[in-house]
Amino acid sequence: MNARNDEEWHWSEDGVNFHTRKWVRPEDLNANGTLFGGSLLRWIDEEAAIYAILQLGNSRVVTKLISEIEFKASALQGDLIEMGLTATKFGRTSLTMRAVVRNMITRQRILTIDRIVFVSLDEQGKPKPHGFSDITYDRDRMPHEHPATGSIALPGN
Amino acid sequence: MNARNDEEWHWSEDGVNFHTRKWVRPEDLNANGTLFGGSLLRWIDEEAAIYAILQLGNSRVVTKLISEIEFKASALQGDLIEMGLTATKFGRTSLTMRAVVRNMITRQRILTIDRIVFVSLDEQGKPKPHGFSDITYDRDRMPHEHPATGSIALPGN
Amino acid sequence: MNARNDEEWHWSEDGVNFHTRKWVRPEDLNANGTLFGGSLLRWIDEEAAIYAILQLGNSRVVTKLISEIEFKASALQGDLIEMGLTATKFGRTSLTMRAVVRNMITRQRILTIDRIVFVSLDEQGKPKPHGFSDITYDRDRMPHEHPATGSIALPGN
Amino acid sequence: MNARNDEEWHWSEDGVNFHTRKWVRPEDLNANGTLFGGSLLRWIDEEAAIYAILQLGNSRVVTKLISEIEFKASALQGDLIEMGLTATKFGRTSLTMRAVVRNMITRQRILTIDRIVFVSLDEQGKPKPHGFSDITYDRDRMPHEHPATGSIALPGN
Amino acid sequence: MNARNDEEWHWSEDGVNFHTRKWVRPEDLNANGTLFGGSLLRWIDEEAAIYAILQLGNSRVVTKLISEIEFKASALQGDLIEMGLTATKFGRTSLTMRAVVRNMITRQRILTIDRIVFVSLDEQGKPKPHGFSDITYDRDRMPHEHPATGSIALPGN
Amino acid sequence: MNARNDEEWHWSEDGVNFHTRKWVRPEDLNANGTLFGGSLLRWIDEEAAIYAILQLGNSRVVTKLISEIEFKASALQGDLIEMGLTATKFGRTSLTMRAVVRNMITRQRILTIDRIVFVSLDEQGKPKPHGFSDITYDRDRMPHEHPATGSIALPGN
Repeated sequence: MNARNDEEWHWSEDGVNFHTRKWVRPEDLNANGTLFGGSLLRWIDEEAAIYAILQLGNSRVVTKLISEIEFKASALQGDLIEMGLTATKFGRTSLTMRAVVRNMITRQRILTIDRIVFVSLDEQGKPKPHGFSDITYDRDRMPHEHPATGSIALPGN
Repeated sequence: MNARNDEEWHWSEDGVNFHTRKWVRPEDLNANGTLFGGSLLRWIDEEAAIYAILQLGNSRVVTKLISEIEFKASALQGDLIEMGLTATKFGRTSLTMRAVVRNMITRQRILTIDRIVFVSLDEQGKPKPHGFSDITYDRDRMPHEHPATGSIALPGN
Repeated sequence: MNARNDEEWHWSEDGVNFHTRKWVRPEDLNANGTLFGGSLLRWIDEEAAIYAILQLGNSRVVTKLISEIEFKASALQGDLIEMGLTATKFGRTSLTMRAVVRNMITRQRILTIDRIVFVSLDEQGKPKPHGFSDITYDRDRMPHEHPATGSIALPGN
Repeated sequence: MNARNDEEWHWSEDGVNFHTRKWVRPEDLNANGTLFGGSLLRWIDEEAAIYAILQLGNSRVVTKLISEIEFKASALQGDLIEMGLTATKFGRTSLTMRAVVRNMITRQRILTIDRIVFVSLDEQGKPKPHGFSDITYDRDRMPHEHPATGSIALPGN
Repeated sequence: MNARNDEEWHWSEDGVNFHTRKWVRPEDLNANGTLFGGSLLRWIDEEAAIYAILQLGNSRVVTKLISEIEFKASALQGDLIEMGLTATKFGRTSLTMRAVVRNMITRQRILTIDRIVFVSLDEQGKPKPHGFSDITYDRDRMPHEHPATGSIALPGN
Repeated sequence: MNARNDEEWHWSEDGVNFHTRKWVRPEDLNANGTLFGGSLLRWIDEEAAIYAILQLGNSRVVTKLISEIEFKASALQGDLIEMGLTATKFGRTSLTMRAVVRNMITRQRILTIDRIVFVSLDEQGKPKPHGFSDITYDRDRMPHEHPATGSIALPGN
């Protein structure tokens, strides 16, 4: 493994504190047999939504902005993909995250997205202040409300 | 309908020359019941791939870059979405497109992407000059080769 | 390209005024590695639904009849498929369309369906007169109502 | 239950000798909340393929023709659908089947298809005589060959 | 075919009275090109739900327990899979089933599950006595209620 | 939150060292509007495969056994699910894992699986000794081979 890849390989250097793996399956390939960009974007958006919900303590969050994406490498069927997200800015109603995606088999960085911005919404779909200003590494902000019904989840039920 | 929406409503003002509709289905929704950003990004990437194949006469194309995306509006289940693409720049091995997505029910622009760049590849997956410098509105560049097998499709077979 | 295929290649000869492309992916193949008939029928029905909604100005439409379908050719993974629809008859509550599907790589006609009939429904699911008697090539009939909620979409919101 | 439904309810009257159930899920619905015609057509084509493979003893079969389909009733989310197929004609390389689909909750017939024709193919994708002239109710024609690899499956391995 | 496989091949010896076939498609494979265990488990759970609904006369059923599963054989793309279920015990609110899954091409048993337990629920999601104590081979227990809406399906509508 | 839930809430008490979140979407629901057991089993099997690949340094792994599963709680649309896996035994060719799944909104344990056994395979699909006897928390065992092609991934390419 060369220096550049070695250096890349440690999440801590990127300050990333959350990561998920995906297995590249036949339905994720384009006609060239490499990872379809659209599948990857879908995975990233879903992971960012989950991360935003846990940081903002609100299940009603929507994607507001995704900054420029450059695809540096790809993946083949059966490769493992690793996605890392880290919160970089807490706005009044928004959260900005940075995303890194890597191919675990080739040790290559597939892409970096500097800013993925999600907005916290209220029941009417209007932006809602979330009241947080820094990252939680704990479970203290997890919502207690079922997003589909709006009812409160009682522990033990 | 107000002025802004009226103005937006004519594709010709955008110079868009290709468009596809999608029907928003349950599997395309997020937990708020609005269109999931990841589903939309997947549709756009697939449409851009098809458009690039037809402009570059090569089935082996991959996404290289997507410029900043700002989500301005959304859609609900059953709404119709319209996507427009137009080639804006022919590089030596690349094609740059502009994308517009609109909600046909609300007449709102959902998003605009200034630059989606695809690259034309050869059989080894290396960038390959495509030899084109302007948009075709015709069928003169359509590939004759089956991308999965590399064999030539003979008419009449 | 031989004469028969050349002749087939111009949509205008078929009077078709709407078309969409699909990329054949691994999940669309049968065990022989050719396009699965069921995937194709699903695409056609979805496109016909979208076309009917835009012609009848009503999001509540259902498939009533599909006339005989003969599969004349097929497609391989990565091939591009093109579907064309044209309205051929406006009934009191129904719309009849003709569908053509072609493989863009082989220039072959995959199938033709003479009559796909959709019916316009009211809120109770009963047939509802649509009041139209000819094709629109414009956007004047597009519904303003969100099909899932029945609420009216206000421009600018 | 009225007379018409009672009569319909016995497969034996239709001579149907094979049936499968499906559970209508959110992804099978159209914007009206009723069963999407395209999902149903996909299920029918898949079941017909399985039935043809077992009757013709060959995994390489493709859809050749589907006769007129009239949708008489529909289904809601969570309803159970029942599909019945019966072979009606053995051609030299083809098999003709009749299909019936019913909603088990409402006891209504959703549709009938008089003729679904599949063709048996050889390794080159050309029609291949199958040598059968009547229905098997047994397992005597089941293929031993893995369709994807063409290798013979040895029992006990 | 050897003795062990021959013996296995007759459902009647297992007392299985319900069976469904599946066609192994590209999306059902793992990175080794063999049937993905997760796809198979999803199929079994869906078939068990349908079987339980028809035995208990109630569309509101949920999986409560699945006993140990040992994977004895696998399948390749295009292989046909056969699933058999039989009710083995009627509890007050539960139904216990036994499941067998076989590869029709190789004649091998893929797995056996001794106990799949489903529970019948009322409208509030609480266990509800079903009142049955033996298997029905008839259609006398089929629910008349649309599970999504709770409304009664009237025959003839 | 009551004592029992509080106690459950700390992964460390379970010795779990890997976890992934899922967002419950419409396609994951059964007819009662709760999480479909089959979807959950599919997620668990996929996560276990990824975990086994990273522990055994081999992309060719298959599910061999899943011990009894009891569903203790469920989830609604939009809820977040958390899955934890931990290696509990290294056999000669196998890896045994323990799995825990929890609903992050209700703080309830959905299920526990004591033993999920995966087997490491060679290129011919035969069990292959992996040579490991304890858990890695590092990246030292990650495979360098593309599972679909068997070619070695060179860093920097």
